[in-house]
Amino acid sequence: MAIAPTTSPPCFDDLFKAQLRDLLVWRRDVRRFKRDALPEGVLDRLIETACLAPSVGLSQPWRFIVVDDAALRGKILAEFERCNADALKSYSGEVAARYARLKLAGLVEAPAHLAVFADRSTIAGRGLGRRTMPEMADYSVVAAVVTMWLAARAEGIGMGWVSILDPARVIEVLGVPSEWRFIGYFCLGFPEDDSQVPELERAGWEHRQDCREHVLRGHD
Amino acid sequence: MAIAPTTSPPCFDDLFKAQLRDLLVWRRDVRRFKRDALPEGVLDRLIETACLAPSVGLSQPWRFIVVDDAALRGKILAEFERCNADALKSYSGEVAARYARLKLAGLVEAPAHLAVFADRSTIAGRGLGRRTMPEMADYSVVAAVVTMWLAARAEGIGMGWVSILDPARVIEVLGVPSEWRFIGYFCLGFPEDDSQVPELERAGWEHRQDCREHVLRGHD
Repeated sequence: MAIAPTTSPPCFDDLFKAQLRDLLVWRRDVRRFKRDALPEGVLDRLIETACLAPSVGLSQPWRFIVVDDAALRGKILAEFERCNADALKSYSGEVAARYARLKLAGLVEAPAHLAVFADRSTIAGRGLGRRTMPEMADYSVVAAVVTMWLAARAEGIGMGWVSILDPARVIEVLGVPSEWRFIGYFCLGFPEDDSQVPELERAGWEHRQDCREHVLRGHD
Repeated sequence: MAIAPTTSPPCFDDLFKAQLRDLLVWRRDVRRFKRDALPEGVLDRLIETACLAPSVGLSQPWRFIVVDDAALRGKILAEFERCNADALKSYSGEVAARYARLKLAGLVEAPAHLAVFADRSTIAGRGLGRRTMPEMADYSVVAAVVTMWLAARAEGIGMGWVSILDPARVIEVLGVPSEWRFIGYFCLGFPEDDSQVPELERAGWEHRQDCREHVLRGHD
């Protein structure tokens, strides 16, 4: 990157704030990827950026598995297909037909695959902030994922979160410690298209709500 | 905001990417706030921005409670103090002394308080992506929180995540539906200072690790 980092507290101007909003508006959960490889080093750089995320007690519980191996990818794809077939059975009629038409993962096309876990057993952070809420470790890992997602989109790279998987099976397939918690399996690559509208909305599955409906004022 | 939104796919230049990195580097979990109120309308705008986050199946399970009521704030503060005293008892010797010196929340000074929940029971999204991982609803809410956190920092506003609370008690105190899951209680306001270094690192509680230690390559 050509621009030197700021060493005194940055002040963000209106142009940056407008571009940040554009980034948020145009970030998508991508399932349709071009097959072009990511440029060398980009995935490692995105993971490094992800680790700038907040973590409870500075516990940094994120664990990343870069899945390049074709045989492993095949096993994950088979797991997805099995779970997705099960999911389809839970719908009926027109909804089932619509579900069957959705493209819910880009596992075949995406050039980069990343499995992400949370290690709740880490001693880093000495348990601070996790005593009443052990799930804070998982949330810290989600914060890293979201950070990576935005940094990726800024580089024109799309990310898709695959959750139609059985966490226990993913842990078994990838051979990671059984005490790790599976947070998500991610496809990364250059998207086939860009949109301000989520793919599930374009497909008529769900629409975006007025977020004011989800804000309440607390009174004693 | 003076700058019009982009209506065709944005391409982010090196300056924006460097500023985005600055934003990530300078975002902090803030516990030391000035008492100045947030400008009118800012919190609602930040919540609206948070709702640009990805959510599983477009389920938008985020639920926000703006806590302005002094009596409610007092009850939350009392809960924090009780949980923090319990946490202190779990440490001993020099570590306990160091824990006791940490400032872990800005509940007294922060001008804005926000409690955030996940509604796993929402029918939005028709359960898509949540069948094998119901926790995806919670993760979607964390995505909204992280989105808000970055948008806030871009405006010079700090956010602090308070997790030293008993989720069941927060639900009781705020009178929200018992099936909602408590994700976090957030303080917002203008920070007393800015730093590239997490407060827990400055206090000698924990240090940042080389994130490459947390990256593995998967092999079959």
